[in-house]
Amino acid sequence: MASEFGKLLRVALFGQSHGAAVGVLVDGLPAGEAVDLDELQAFLDRRRAKPDGLSTARAETDVPRFLSGLEDGKTCGFPLCAVLDNADTHSRDYDALRAVPRPGHADYTAWAKWHGFADMRGGGHFSGRLTAPLCVAGGIAKQILSRRGVHVGAHLYRAGGVADAPFPLSPTPGLFDELAAKAFPVLDDDAGERMKSVIRAARADADSVGGVVECAAVGLPAGLGGPFFDGLESRLAAAVFGIPAVKGVEFGAGFGAADLRGSANNDPFAVHDGAIVTETNHSGGILGGITTGMPVVFRAAFKPTPSIGKPQKSVDLNTMEAATLTVSGRHDPCVAHRAVPVAEAVAACVLLDLLLEYREGTSWN
Amino acid sequence: MASEFGKLLRVALFGQSHGAAVGVLVDGLPAGEAVDLDELQAFLDRRRAKPDGLSTARAETDVPRFLSGLEDGKTCGFPLCAVLDNADTHSRDYDALRAVPRPGHADYTAWAKWHGFADMRGGGHFSGRLTAPLCVAGGIAKQILSRRGVHVGAHLYRAGGVADAPFPLSPTPGLFDELAAKAFPVLDDDAGERMKSVIRAARADADSVGGVVECAAVGLPAGLGGPFFDGLESRLAAAVFGIPAVKGVEFGAGFGAADLRGSANNDPFAVHDGAIVTETNHSGGILGGITTGMPVVFRAAFKPTPSIGKPQKSVDLNTMEAATLTVSGRHDPCVAHRAVPVAEAVAACVLLDLLLEYREGTSWN
Amino acid sequence: MASEFGKLLRVALFGQSHGAAVGVLVDGLPAGEAVDLDELQAFLDRRRAKPDGLSTARAETDVPRFLSGLEDGKTCGFPLCAVLDNADTHSRDYDALRAVPRPGHADYTAWAKWHGFADMRGGGHFSGRLTAPLCVAGGIAKQILSRRGVHVGAHLYRAGGVADAPFPLSPTPGLFDELAAKAFPVLDDDAGERMKSVIRAARADADSVGGVVECAAVGLPAGLGGPFFDGLESRLAAAVFGIPAVKGVEFGAGFGAADLRGSANNDPFAVHDGAIVTETNHSGGILGGITTGMPVVFRAAFKPTPSIGKPQKSVDLNTMEAATLTVSGRHDPCVAHRAVPVAEAVAACVLLDLLLEYREGTSWN
Amino acid sequence: MASEFGKLLRVALFGQSHGAAVGVLVDGLPAGEAVDLDELQAFLDRRRAKPDGLSTARAETDVPRFLSGLEDGKTCGFPLCAVLDNADTHSRDYDALRAVPRPGHADYTAWAKWHGFADMRGGGHFSGRLTAPLCVAGGIAKQILSRRGVHVGAHLYRAGGVADAPFPLSPTPGLFDELAAKAFPVLDDDAGERMKSVIRAARADADSVGGVVECAAVGLPAGLGGPFFDGLESRLAAAVFGIPAVKGVEFGAGFGAADLRGSANNDPFAVHDGAIVTETNHSGGILGGITTGMPVVFRAAFKPTPSIGKPQKSVDLNTMEAATLTVSGRHDPCVAHRAVPVAEAVAACVLLDLLLEYREGTSWN
Repeated sequence: MASEFGKLLRVALFGQSHGAAVGVLVDGLPAGEAVDLDELQAFLDRRRAKPDGLSTARAETDVPRFLSGLEDGKTCGFPLCAVLDNADTHSRDYDALRAVPRPGHADYTAWAKWHGFADMRGGGHFSGRLTAPLCVAGGIAKQILSRRGVHVGAHLYRAGGVADAPFPLSPTPGLFDELAAKAFPVLDDDAGERMKSVIRAARADADSVGGVVECAAVGLPAGLGGPFFDGLESRLAAAVFGIPAVKGVEFGAGFGAADLRGSANNDPFAVHDGAIVTETNHSGGILGGITTGMPVVFRAAFKPTPSIGKPQKSVDLNTMEAATLTVSGRHDPCVAHRAVPVAEAVAACVLLDLLLEYREGTSWN
Repeated sequence: MASEFGKLLRVALFGQSHGAAVGVLVDGLPAGEAVDLDELQAFLDRRRAKPDGLSTARAETDVPRFLSGLEDGKTCGFPLCAVLDNADTHSRDYDALRAVPRPGHADYTAWAKWHGFADMRGGGHFSGRLTAPLCVAGGIAKQILSRRGVHVGAHLYRAGGVADAPFPLSPTPGLFDELAAKAFPVLDDDAGERMKSVIRAARADADSVGGVVECAAVGLPAGLGGPFFDGLESRLAAAVFGIPAVKGVEFGAGFGAADLRGSANNDPFAVHDGAIVTETNHSGGILGGITTGMPVVFRAAFKPTPSIGKPQKSVDLNTMEAATLTVSGRHDPCVAHRAVPVAEAVAACVLLDLLLEYREGTSWN
Repeated sequence: MASEFGKLLRVALFGQSHGAAVGVLVDGLPAGEAVDLDELQAFLDRRRAKPDGLSTARAETDVPRFLSGLEDGKTCGFPLCAVLDNADTHSRDYDALRAVPRPGHADYTAWAKWHGFADMRGGGHFSGRLTAPLCVAGGIAKQILSRRGVHVGAHLYRAGGVADAPFPLSPTPGLFDELAAKAFPVLDDDAGERMKSVIRAARADADSVGGVVECAAVGLPAGLGGPFFDGLESRLAAAVFGIPAVKGVEFGAGFGAADLRGSANNDPFAVHDGAIVTETNHSGGILGGITTGMPVVFRAAFKPTPSIGKPQKSVDLNTMEAATLTVSGRHDPCVAHRAVPVAEAVAACVLLDLLLEYREGTSWN
Repeated sequence: MASEFGKLLRVALFGQSHGAAVGVLVDGLPAGEAVDLDELQAFLDRRRAKPDGLSTARAETDVPRFLSGLEDGKTCGFPLCAVLDNADTHSRDYDALRAVPRPGHADYTAWAKWHGFADMRGGGHFSGRLTAPLCVAGGIAKQILSRRGVHVGAHLYRAGGVADAPFPLSPTPGLFDELAAKAFPVLDDDAGERMKSVIRAARADADSVGGVVECAAVGLPAGLGGPFFDGLESRLAAAVFGIPAVKGVEFGAGFGAADLRGSANNDPFAVHDGAIVTETNHSGGILGGITTGMPVVFRAAFKPTPSIGKPQKSVDLNTMEAATLTVSGRHDPCVAHRAVPVAEAVAACVLLDLLLEYREGTSWN
């Protein structure tokens, strides 16, 4: 499906921002896995907009209803379908937009592809609202992974030009828990305060800012993934670029590696506690598309929210004449901080999918 | 397949660096398409190592033999298989490496995945040599695309810390031709000379440098692609991350967009010659995973060649003791300039695949 | 997904017989297609159990709720999710079955695969109830196809050893409509009466019978499909074998062709009204996996309903001792007549998927 | 790919009957698996035409060359490409056919799909010759399976209206070996002699006959496969219908089950040597798309070879006028007996693919 990813674990999104509901269909989950609904809700709440001036005023409760796939609190092997009803929609805010596409949004491209038939109220199927069901899938994947010693965490690495500290060489599950507990998920809270100021200033200015999320996964075995187009970078990147507003993805040293010499970028191998490790992790835990056993680390760049209150230049698609557009409605002055759990969700789904393919010992027993 | 990408147009690589041959299987090409073998060879020659001190001394003629899929110089609708025989291999250079993985290479991860059964001579299936058959597929796709007015070009955007000029807002096919004709594909030849100096200096120092390739495609209609995980960014990124040594991919303003405000990053719509355009192209020609009709622009970061002549720290996998490794063999002090046509090849395959799905007019006629 | 089929048009089922709901997710539908809900309901009602002594006493209203993908009565290009709530479930009927698998059902194999975690009440995800959402997808596909002149129809070809007349060489849409209007969809109503008697006799005997459904599609162009594993037979068969209880699929003369000589089985080509036709249709409208333009004809064999009232030999999985089982609950003495629209639904989805790939004129324009 | 099947184990065919070579690309084989080339050749030789008056006079040596994927006689984890050169081609036999499609062949449908660009000499990519590389893939899969106790065998179940004995309830690997050693693979040699007479009579009459192959796999665990469209029947059928000339596939009692009552068709469960078995195997070892642990049994119906020496009615595609066609060239009067190892090959690939997905114990560890 267009809105689907994964091989043995398949995740498919559906729903429009102002339709009856948004939801997710997850097929291929192992059976008999407990799903802690409180823990899942806590994860979903990390993504929800909060009344802190940093997010949209739209408030959804984001409590999933499970139509299938769960029995007595455990996965039952069958496809899991979870639905989040849409309640707090103000569709009238969007009626005027139909003929005049908002810059930076999918209004125009959806019109070009579906010739005006796409339901684009509130961004339609392109809405960031769809990341809520994505987090349902990812939150369940995270619980399953953590029982196997694989932990995924993320933080806001950069926002509005302000940088957080990077992850240490080997982030711990405890560090991930600390970040998850923070209202504003940064490693350096001073940097976090400066980020908030920048976001609030943009908001006051009827504008928005972008940001970068850094995500890491620890506890993975070496040997996960494969060469070329099915490699871990390809599969993670395909999923991460599926998150609305992502315009760049890099692993380990990423774009910075392009400016390094090989002698600086290569990660020396060493033995630590009987296991092979690398002394640095410029590779982001991936060589040849396959895990090294070191933390998998990637960063995703989020563009500034395209919905801004300032007047913008556009075109009336009916008359093909220039038009000026002012986006009302309720919007986030920055999406990157709310995207932190979304990045974790996507990473958890991809990694669980790969683990389902993986067999220890000789490649097949 | 692990070494395969595409939906209606499928491209699968096979072969090891020091095996009998490398090759590519391409299924789903439209039938009756002429393949100009001279033009194809010229494209393949752009990727070949040249005796300029910037590349490996390994010399392969890189003339593909077509086992199937071509008849009388035209595609015949059936799967096309092209093979490039391996001739100039010095496998003895690699025998010593088997037990001591080279830092930055897939030696260790392949060992972890396939438990020593992988044929890793010369990098095995992970070798950059596999990009030759990839260019066979891409070179054919480029010819087919160009007959429909879609042109793909690329240049070395950055190498060893030296920057080329970026592509202009609307690069022309003529500009792509000029770049393709250059021995060192940069827009700013002065910058190119500085890059060459940096590469030669690294080589003299038994070291290597990384780089960034910028690739653009022009002539695409608006409306190509789709939301979420099957969007153009996801599909292009999955393929581009399949190129060996790529550690980052960004579209349009990319990571730079994360530092912009929405009012600066949003591309205003306008009408130009009766068509809808954007006045800037920070989106890289993609909104909501769907083409805007503006040039599709992406950049791929290549890490510095991991094979360097300096002694490096590693581990002997048999003894699990520290070992020092010096990589002999013949290697590129930089792969990014040779990767310029490879980026074009991958982009051409993905875009042709998407065009095969695309239907003008109402989404289905 | 395991419960998914299709390439450009993807259909995924979810839900358990006694869970909250069953449903279907359909991605890749062309946009702007009107969905006549009355016509769709009439199609769904053909599959519903009727109080005629030929079907289960379980009564579900089978009215789908659309969570996404439809706006103002038209497809909007986004994934369509339809849900049918489960209302009339008697789960207590099934509690006793858990440890003693019913012969002919998936109870044991689901237990072996998911180690007791599968929710098998009422057959769980394996239930014939899942064919209701499958008919939602197929009913919409049928409406879209019929607007392009492609019509799909089916009849009960055989039940309990009684044969209906076969489809004529070129069945008309009018014939399909007649069949659709019948409470018992056969071409020869006398044969139909004998079938009903056989079914009722089996029911009276606490037993069940099997049957064969014949399905045809007319109006397809020549040139649809492809060689080998992606051919029309492969794609149709994969989908049709997904219908619960199907144990055989054949195209055209099918198994009968194995007893013919080539001179009798080959369909002579002729020109009729300026078009190429075949004078017979032993090929079932498919040569080399590709449509000939003649009607596509296949038959699917349904085994007798495994749920019967007679005592049966089984094993207690807890004690591994022999056990006798009597299946209570409400069951169909024959599923084949209710499966007639299901076969149409599956065929319509596959054919629409193939048409979305198909381009008239040179294979690519 | 169109000519590809499998999920974790991918098998893709390429080549035309009269092109340079035919071949197969196999990706996803476990690494470190020994490939006994003599055993493989013996398997390929079972498919080859023999000078016994039952097959074509075209003689190919059918010795595969491995371009990749094998090192020191073992799979190395990378994609395996095997090529069989075409030597004994008489293309001039086919030149006359181009404008007048042969009844029962893909000539016309390929012309409709690829507008005359398809290379149809000798049947092009549709040729039975492509089953040779398919047997390379399957022969390797069979060796890997047999080391895990899974054995696949087949026999000619029916030819020209003459029936062989069916497989017993539990065929042994020894029985499979006996069949493989026979020049004419039937269980009942008297029936085999009658079949040969019928085939020779058809040949003498410039005609051909069809047949049915029965294939079984033993040693599979219970719990392999899944519900609906990814079930074992769907996956096997999709692959088996990819074999040229197959027009019907059935599992276990198959079409015969449609005439049985449930009480006769249901397979009673019992305990035998501590394991759960069924006392009969009408299900063909599959319930709900999942293996029961009993032998997986299917039958494939092959139509009579469409190439016959008798004059046939066709149409000249250039003039659209009736034409009479006599097929010269060298052809098989029956393909079903040569298809016996092909059915095994396809089944082995599908079953190995499913085993690669399968994990014993709780569905995921």
